[in-house]
Amino acid sequence: MSDSPTARPVSRRGVLTGGALAAGGALAGATAVAVADPPRVRPASTVPVAEVGTAVEPFHGPRQAGVATEPQAHAAFVAFTLRPGTDRAALGRMLRLLSDDAARLTQGRPALADTEPELGLLPARLTVTFGFGPGFYTAAGLDARRPPSVVDLPAFGIDRLQRRWSGGDLLLQICADDPLTVAHTQRVLVKDSRPFATVAWVQQGFRRAAGAEPGRTQRNLFGQIDGTANPRPGAALDAAVWAPDGPVWLRDGTTLVVRRISMNLETWDLLGRTDRELAVGRRLDTGAPLTGEDEHDEPDFAATGPDGLAVMPDFSHVTRSHVSDDRLKILRRPYNYDGAPTPDGHADSGLIFASYQADITRQFLPIQQRLAERDLLNEWTTPIGSAVFAIPPGCAEGGWIGQQLLD
Amino acid sequence: MSDSPTARPVSRRGVLTGGALAAGGALAGATAVAVADPPRVRPASTVPVAEVGTAVEPFHGPRQAGVATEPQAHAAFVAFTLRPGTDRAALGRMLRLLSDDAARLTQGRPALADTEPELGLLPARLTVTFGFGPGFYTAAGLDARRPPSVVDLPAFGIDRLQRRWSGGDLLLQICADDPLTVAHTQRVLVKDSRPFATVAWVQQGFRRAAGAEPGRTQRNLFGQIDGTANPRPGAALDAAVWAPDGPVWLRDGTTLVVRRISMNLETWDLLGRTDRELAVGRRLDTGAPLTGEDEHDEPDFAATGPDGLAVMPDFSHVTRSHVSDDRLKILRRPYNYDGAPTPDGHADSGLIFASYQADITRQFLPIQQRLAERDLLNEWTTPIGSAVFAIPPGCAEGGWIGQQLLD
Ligand code: HEM
Ligand code: HEM
Repeated sequence: MSDSPTARPVSRRGVLTGGALAAGGALAGATAVAVADPPRVRPASTVPVAEVGTAVEPFHGPRQAGVATEPQAHAAFVAFTLRPGTDRAALGRMLRLLSDDAARLTQGRPALADTEPELGLLPARLTVTFGFGPGFYTAAGLDARRPPSVVDLPAFGIDRLQRRWSGGDLLLQICADDPLTVAHTQRVLVKDSRPFATVAWVQQGFRRAAGAEPGRTQRNLFGQIDGTANPRPGAALDAAVWAPDGPVWLRDGTTLVVRRISMNLETWDLLGRTDRELAVGRRLDTGAPLTGEDEHDEPDFAATGPDGLAVMPDFSHVTRSHVSDDRLKILRRPYNYDGAPTPDGHADSGLIFASYQADITRQFLPIQQRLAERDLLNEWTTPIGSAVFAIPPGCAEGGWIGQQLLD
Repeated sequence: MSDSPTARPVSRRGVLTGGALAAGGALAGATAVAVADPPRVRPASTVPVAEVGTAVEPFHGPRQAGVATEPQAHAAFVAFTLRPGTDRAALGRMLRLLSDDAARLTQGRPALADTEPELGLLPARLTVTFGFGPGFYTAAGLDARRPPSVVDLPAFGIDRLQRRWSGGDLLLQICADDPLTVAHTQRVLVKDSRPFATVAWVQQGFRRAAGAEPGRTQRNLFGQIDGTANPRPGAALDAAVWAPDGPVWLRDGTTLVVRRISMNLETWDLLGRTDRELAVGRRLDTGAPLTGEDEHDEPDFAATGPDGLAVMPDFSHVTRSHVSDDRLKILRRPYNYDGAPTPDGHADSGLIFASYQADITRQFLPIQQRLAERDLLNEWTTPIGSAVFAIPPGCAEGGWIGQQLLD
């Protein structure tokens, strides 16, 4: 029995005794864990000053910022529903306006109609990334130019999607290292889009603060190191992200999938460390694959243990999601979310999973399908929102985002 | 008419024409504003590394941290309702446990029962500050030891209080420069308090990121410099905050008022800059009083303009809230909040107003009463939550918070 794959792979290995949720018992030993290489802490007064506030990311250029950009600490994903009557011409007006706002605010200058101009002076690496959802092309009368893969994802068995976190005709991904900058930018952009669109949903998320853990891959709320196997900036990232073919207007563009995935900390907390590591295929302390020593060691999916079983279990998240061909990889750029707990103390925590890829059908979907089929992590995670967008190319000074499509 | 105070002081001066909400017209000139002294921005790659993650604030000591502590970037105010049966002995057990958690996490060590120990390693100046609300003493059978001023505030005409943001028997104010650290700490503390209490409310807020604007007073979501006239660390702060008399167990303790105050950005945005500055009594760009040049100049409430009227209007927020005697001042330590806007784009923004003072009745109440009576800012702000707590003294190593009261 132990080597035949089952629909619920939880019992495949002896280590996961009695089903995932009851597996905590003997192995749940978080308190006994000697944490590898704890960073040295020091008195607060010795912290050097960072001036993260004045750092800028470029706005103008062939490609939009906020994709290959080293992720900032804070994000607001703001999705809009276009108002009836927002046609191609109106979309052009809206995007001229919002592009101008973004061009200014990202460079530390207040927006033209900024009613709190002093809040526009600290960009803190602000980026504003525009995305066009399926309804955008219909509104513009340009259905023929919709990138074929920008269409609602098929339903997966693991999904418990809520309308309040799903869909959207237009997306603004607002990221900065300062939360006040994100709030102000969100306010300006929402206000200026009001004649054209209503707010469908807003998802606010965070990663480690700027300077908190320089050079380290961030951890998510399960405590996992999350982002290790992302394609690196340069050739690998370029091959994965920037559309090499597809519609002409999307050259130097890409696509974005946003999934709101709730993470059940309650049941995850019942698991022992070994089980957690098998569920992902990586160690909790270092993030190394179960077949390696260092975070960035390549996992060896062929390696077997003394029991003859694969060391990287077939049901592990990494085994199921791994791809070798750079052109088939996805660039994950997720943010944690943490709302208010219920009265009984159950957390409202999860991941705003965001992935960039040249083509959703070719890259994202096969991975998501393999994960939906048999990723052990599904036991503790539930997709509750889903949305897809094309990310148009950037624009030169004086230009605006969406010009290549709408003009 | 122009010099007789009226109940709605909006029309006292010509500058506020036609009532505050319609006053935007001619004066609303945010776009024309030349912002004084904008900080220089620079390419993101030149940002020096801060390592804000490893900075620690002390936990043990005669006074609790998180009061006089330079405010961190992120906060979660977590209020609990004690479960029936949580008596004096149970409170002792709960506070031993939570004090131990806080003592570890603030020093960059995982909590004893930490199920995500790797998330406990970066304190980022974490502080956990304990507060005891009115119901706490009743549960402990110690009503006689309740500090007299720790009782629900009287109702004010400006209040629109919601139960979901009000009251609470126990408060944990969790502050750190890293949002993941706040989330993890909240999770651990909520979990460990579960046998004893349910969550009444959680308010999450933010200020500027660590290092974003070093040495500057922060701005709130109205764009105002907020915090200028706070008593400075040292004698002034000590006189305002730390209880010199009152119950013996509260020596080296203080009290905390938490008010959730929604800020109407929509109507505020309709105002011109002059009107905004008159409403507060300070300039938007520099934060200087209307009678001065620099942020820290003392306002001159006797100064009159060419029209014979006070330069600092009687209805301005600063005029109404100003106190000269250090022992009557309050220490404000507020955080901004910014939820998701409505479909129509109306922001859910405001201030988690938090003030520390030795005695609520003697210090906070008279200020709040004067503001409730006739603070022009009331036109754009609405208190929607209210809670009060005693902040017990700190504890030595091996001790626990609340010991002086409960032991
Ligand atoms: C809450 C949900 C999720 C959590 C907590 C999570 C967590 C992780 C972790 C800890 C890793 C290993 C370290 C790394 O390379 O980043 C990982 C890898 C990965 N995940 Fe996820 N993930 C989630 C959802 C997803 C989804 C929805 C997809 C795509 C459909 C996905 C695709 C990937 C890919 C492609 C890798 C890299 C695999 C490799 O090549 O080694 N993940 N994830
Ligand atoms: C959303 C609500 C509020 C906003 C936006 C706000 C804003 C401000 C601003 C901009 C200042 C001037 C700069 C400074 O000294 O910090 C100020 C000062 C002050 N505020 Fe508020 N405030 C609010 C609520 C309150 C409340 C509820 C109280 C107390 C009941 C209060 C008490 C004070 C005090 C004591 C000062 C210093 C006055 C002085 O001595 O100059 N504020 N506030």
